[in-house]
Amino acid sequence: MSTELWYTERYEEHGAALSLKVREVLHREQSPYQTIEIFETEHFGTLMTLDGLVMLTDRDNFLYHEMMTHPALFAHPAPKRVLIIGGGDCGTLREVLRHPEVELAEQVELDERVTRVAERFFPLLCERNDDPRSRFHFQDGIAWAENAKPGSYDLIIVDSTDPVGPAAGLFGEEFYAACFRALGEQGVLVAQSESPLLHADLIRQCQRRMQGAGFDSVDTLFFPQFAYPSGWWSATLARKGVERNAFRRKDAEQMQGLQYYHADMQAAAMVAPAFLLPEH
Amino acid sequence: MSTELWYTERYEEHGAALSLKVREVLHREQSPYQTIEIFETEHFGTLMTLDGLVMLTDRDNFLYHEMMTHPALFAHPAPKRVLIIGGGDCGTLREVLRHPEVELAEQVELDERVTRVAERFFPLLCERNDDPRSRFHFQDGIAWAENAKPGSYDLIIVDSTDPVGPAAGLFGEEFYAACFRALGEQGVLVAQSESPLLHADLIRQCQRRMQGAGFDSVDTLFFPQFAYPSGWWSATLARKGVERNAFRRKDAEQMQGLQYYHADMQAAAMVAPAFLLPEH
Repeated sequence: MSTELWYTERYEEHGAALSLKVREVLHREQSPYQTIEIFETEHFGTLMTLDGLVMLTDRDNFLYHEMMTHPALFAHPAPKRVLIIGGGDCGTLREVLRHPEVELAEQVELDERVTRVAERFFPLLCERNDDPRSRFHFQDGIAWAENAKPGSYDLIIVDSTDPVGPAAGLFGEEFYAACFRALGEQGVLVAQSESPLLHADLIRQCQRRMQGAGFDSVDTLFFPQFAYPSGWWSATLARKGVERNAFRRKDAEQMQGLQYYHADMQAAAMVAPAFLLPEH
Repeated sequence: MSTELWYTERYEEHGAALSLKVREVLHREQSPYQTIEIFETEHFGTLMTLDGLVMLTDRDNFLYHEMMTHPALFAHPAPKRVLIIGGGDCGTLREVLRHPEVELAEQVELDERVTRVAERFFPLLCERNDDPRSRFHFQDGIAWAENAKPGSYDLIIVDSTDPVGPAAGLFGEEFYAACFRALGEQGVLVAQSESPLLHADLIRQCQRRMQGAGFDSVDTLFFPQFAYPSGWWSATLARKGVERNAFRRKDAEQMQGLQYYHADMQAAAMVAPAFLLPEH
């Protein structure tokens, strides 16, 4: 029997842990911001961790990346100018650039090394990095949103890590207000908002803060994501000058090549569990 | 620093594992069929395992039990006679007995010890065991379905373990044909059908076999379930003499006390991921 290698992420506050069997460590580096590690797993393809936390695996990242992008893009009548905050692995950027309406996709990621490592180990996620519509800025996303020219984006996607350390500000009302200003008269904001099972209070807070920042309506999207704590994840979507039921269904029906999202998922993903309904 | 105790379930075929931090082992016994263990976890309440596999935890079993029952019960116009195969922890029975239309709920579980242990350690799940409408039969569920008087049930719920060992037959077309015969002119069958991420082929097979057994229409329900492999689970529902879109919405809207299911979840849970759509 040969030695077994397992990567384990402990969800300390929840007394739970996820482990993935590893064939080998492909890469390990200390960037100016964090430890970036790449593993070849036995059954989930390549795995990236940042400071020991799973960011993505080949096998299941389609769930997160499709749900962070397509519902928001199809909720906007004409999403031409897109800002991605975080998203260093470029999986979100790839999904955004599937949309022919998009004319500019700017990605503002603090840690350039995440993107460079993704280019090497997740070539599929980075296959559209050379698209002439994409722009990369390796700097602080909060400052970028605060300094953005008012009305300069149609869609802002916050593809961040957990609300600790540098990412904590990405969950605050001031940041949402900056996004509100940076969006045009018709704008959509979508932000990853953690696990419904483990972080229901954070989701409620996120909804309240987006409303407080001036958005007309807010809905949370629910979807599975094995590699994240509890296997159940969410993104919260806020609309400015866009009807709550706005949805370009025909365009969604024509989108090809997706593994999870399709037109009928738009409404289905917004059905909250009973414990997160407002009247509950 | 005190010693830490962790329970770990390895999903060997998938090179993954889930661990829960444990305070103490509350109970351990060898029944005629399996090893039954009860743990007090740090953050998920009481945990039951059978032969080392998670059956349920206090904290997240509502997801599975609500989704194994309410969509099927509300899809039937008048579910009076219900058969539960498996379901020894009685969580499914409890949900079934929330429905005032139900006149008889027969539970056929192979291992009486599972039910006795649940009565001791999961009193909430067993709170309706004394309901005059409930009947317990501790015997083989496959034989029970085969020998049932034709047309004797309105609803059959297969709340089984994984398709290995004694439960393997519960995933076969012969068993589904026996259920078809045991159902009345209007009948609904629902069976747990494993993880969409890890067992997509099994879900497709289950759908085909239910169609093959004579059912008019088949839909799979998708829902989160942290404690089961991948955190994403399914149940497959088949209708006999019942319209595909049949749904007692008003009754569903009046159901109180649920944590996950509500009327809008009926259709939302039946929206399959793109990779499981028939045309994919």
